[in-house]
Amino acid sequence: MRLWPLSRLGRPKQMVTIGGDRSLLQRTIERVSDPGLFAPPILVTGAAEAEAVAGQLAAIGAAPGATILEPAPRGTAAAIALAALEAGGDSVLLVLPSDHEIADPAALRAALAAALPCAVEGRLVTFGIRPDRAETGYGWIRRGAPLGGGLFEAAAFVEKPDRAKAEQLLAEGNHDWNAGIFLLRADILLTALALHAPAILDAARAASQGAGRADGIVRPAADAFAEAPSLSIDKAVMEKAENVAVIPVEMGWSDIGSWDAVHALGPRDADGNSLSGDVVAPDSRNCLIRSDGPTIVALGVEDLVIVATERAVLIVPRGEGQRVQEAIAALEARHGDRASQGMSGDKE
Amino acid sequence: MRLWPLSRLGRPKQMVTIGGDRSLLQRTIERVSDPGLFAPPILVTGAAEAEAVAGQLAAIGAAPGATILEPAPRGTAAAIALAALEAGGDSVLLVLPSDHEIADPAALRAALAAALPCAVEGRLVTFGIRPDRAETGYGWIRRGAPLGGGLFEAAAFVEKPDRAKAEQLLAEGNHDWNAGIFLLRADILLTALALHAPAILDAARAASQGAGRADGIVRPAADAFAEAPSLSIDKAVMEKAENVAVIPVEMGWSDIGSWDAVHALGPRDADGNSLSGDVVAPDSRNCLIRSDGPTIVALGVEDLVIVATERAVLIVPRGEGQRVQEAIAALEARHGDRASQGMSGDKE
Repeated sequence: MRLWPLSRLGRPKQMVTIGGDRSLLQRTIERVSDPGLFAPPILVTGAAEAEAVAGQLAAIGAAPGATILEPAPRGTAAAIALAALEAGGDSVLLVLPSDHEIADPAALRAALAAALPCAVEGRLVTFGIRPDRAETGYGWIRRGAPLGGGLFEAAAFVEKPDRAKAEQLLAEGNHDWNAGIFLLRADILLTALALHAPAILDAARAASQGAGRADGIVRPAADAFAEAPSLSIDKAVMEKAENVAVIPVEMGWSDIGSWDAVHALGPRDADGNSLSGDVVAPDSRNCLIRSDGPTIVALGVEDLVIVATERAVLIVPRGEGQRVQEAIAALEARHGDRASQGMSGDKE
Repeated sequence: MRLWPLSRLGRPKQMVTIGGDRSLLQRTIERVSDPGLFAPPILVTGAAEAEAVAGQLAAIGAAPGATILEPAPRGTAAAIALAALEAGGDSVLLVLPSDHEIADPAALRAALAAALPCAVEGRLVTFGIRPDRAETGYGWIRRGAPLGGGLFEAAAFVEKPDRAKAEQLLAEGNHDWNAGIFLLRADILLTALALHAPAILDAARAASQGAGRADGIVRPAADAFAEAPSLSIDKAVMEKAENVAVIPVEMGWSDIGSWDAVHALGPRDADGNSLSGDVVAPDSRNCLIRSDGPTIVALGVEDLVIVATERAVLIVPRGEGQRVQEAIAALEARHGDRASQGMSGDKE
């Protein structure tokens, strides 16, 4: 909920339009829509968002190969296992989170072309984002021995570091951010799951075998899926497997993890403002101001993030967007139950 | 609409609760509710606000002597003429705008006691507010010859001055602000109107004679009232009449003409914040933050005025509240017709 109040329970970040006229989900789908390079995508989503996801795809004329509805959230390992089982055989999967921005799609394609032989040979390839700051919000990956073609063995996965550790990693120069983007063969992943997280594989396989399938919608068996331990793919597989590679890329990547990122990446006017919705901002500078509801009048203010919906208004200095979590905590303390009914609480 | 977006067409400033739990209208009524000193008040209001006014009086258990519904707004001269005709004879009227704050009611009463003999003798007495700054938003009154009891002849009415002129008036020390508060005999006012603004008197008298009266509600004849030139009592009478007196007073007066005034006069917490409504403001200081609608989260901001309703959000640095007019103009330019349908537009 780092983009609160815009993102919230029932309307996660990937569904809302941020900069431009398409959502992050729509832009992600468009990124892999070249039929010469990609098969129709397999989407994995919560059942609660299924209708909204279908609507967003229809709006851009995209037809998924399959849409898998998670019966319950069980982490990325189980979700990717469902997709790998659906794809089957030695299909090569590009695993893409649907709430990231990639400003340079040509760089993504170049990295894909470089990584494909390595994935076909049986490596689990992670895309490492070249770091430009000592970011404490991401995991980092240490590059090991070079594998050719710009790829390296993944020597170690470093969990989200503290500030000092992040500065050390940045200075060392041999670490990249773990963005949760992977290129891997379905059968290689399933083999790795069997070795390192067999309970997840068993649950996913049983859920997939018992799934209902109609009109491109896959509904895995809920009882079976509920048995899956809830783990990230990093924890379940990548940190343990020997056959993990990393390809460092610079492709204008952002997880749009804060309003500051939206301001930094989006279009700005001559005053440095990024304005959207019903907003007037005379004599204001270097602000991100967005309304999805009321008229906002910001007069003579600077370096602020102002976001309004019909339910809530956020005002925070630019550069402190990550503190929104504090605000949510304060709100939850104040509102009690109401907070759990949609004031906040998406999966981030 | 200097308290936009809280005040707007259909919900003027005097009707909303600002600091404490009563509206400015309710506090004005309470100020004159001592039956040993005051007869039940005569209210003059627009027909559109009649129901809300009645509700606010009922909420504090106040019963007006009469409520006169202006058929159309024709300025304060015609409105006061209606009240004077309703009161009749040599009744002494205390004319009070319903959207002012008077923090020191004892000072008001002392000034009333001092001014009453002068009003009874036939002077139109204005209450002059002792100025503490070079205010350009008010008219000023020059004191003339002393009349005893702390009163003076009103030597001249000065229209809203520019900054240099206001500083000169402040330095001269013999001018007070014109707050639109008067003590005057009904018959003396009607005589002055007959002399200086006979068309207003004729229209008001015809409207009053043709009025419908039921249950304490007076509905002046609309056709007749429409003939009244629309003028302020200052322009129609006070600037012209010879028998005008001024009594300088210090009574904690404010016309709550900006959000800055609300912040300055209202209660503030240990961080210097004045918060009302559904607001959380961790690590914020010296802000006025008020919501009449959405939840406001203001995180780590200082010296801001933030006001939200369901329709609009205002953010402006504290101390620049008077610039709200600029914002309204910008909005009107943007919204066109919509602006005239309630985005803005009260009588101020």
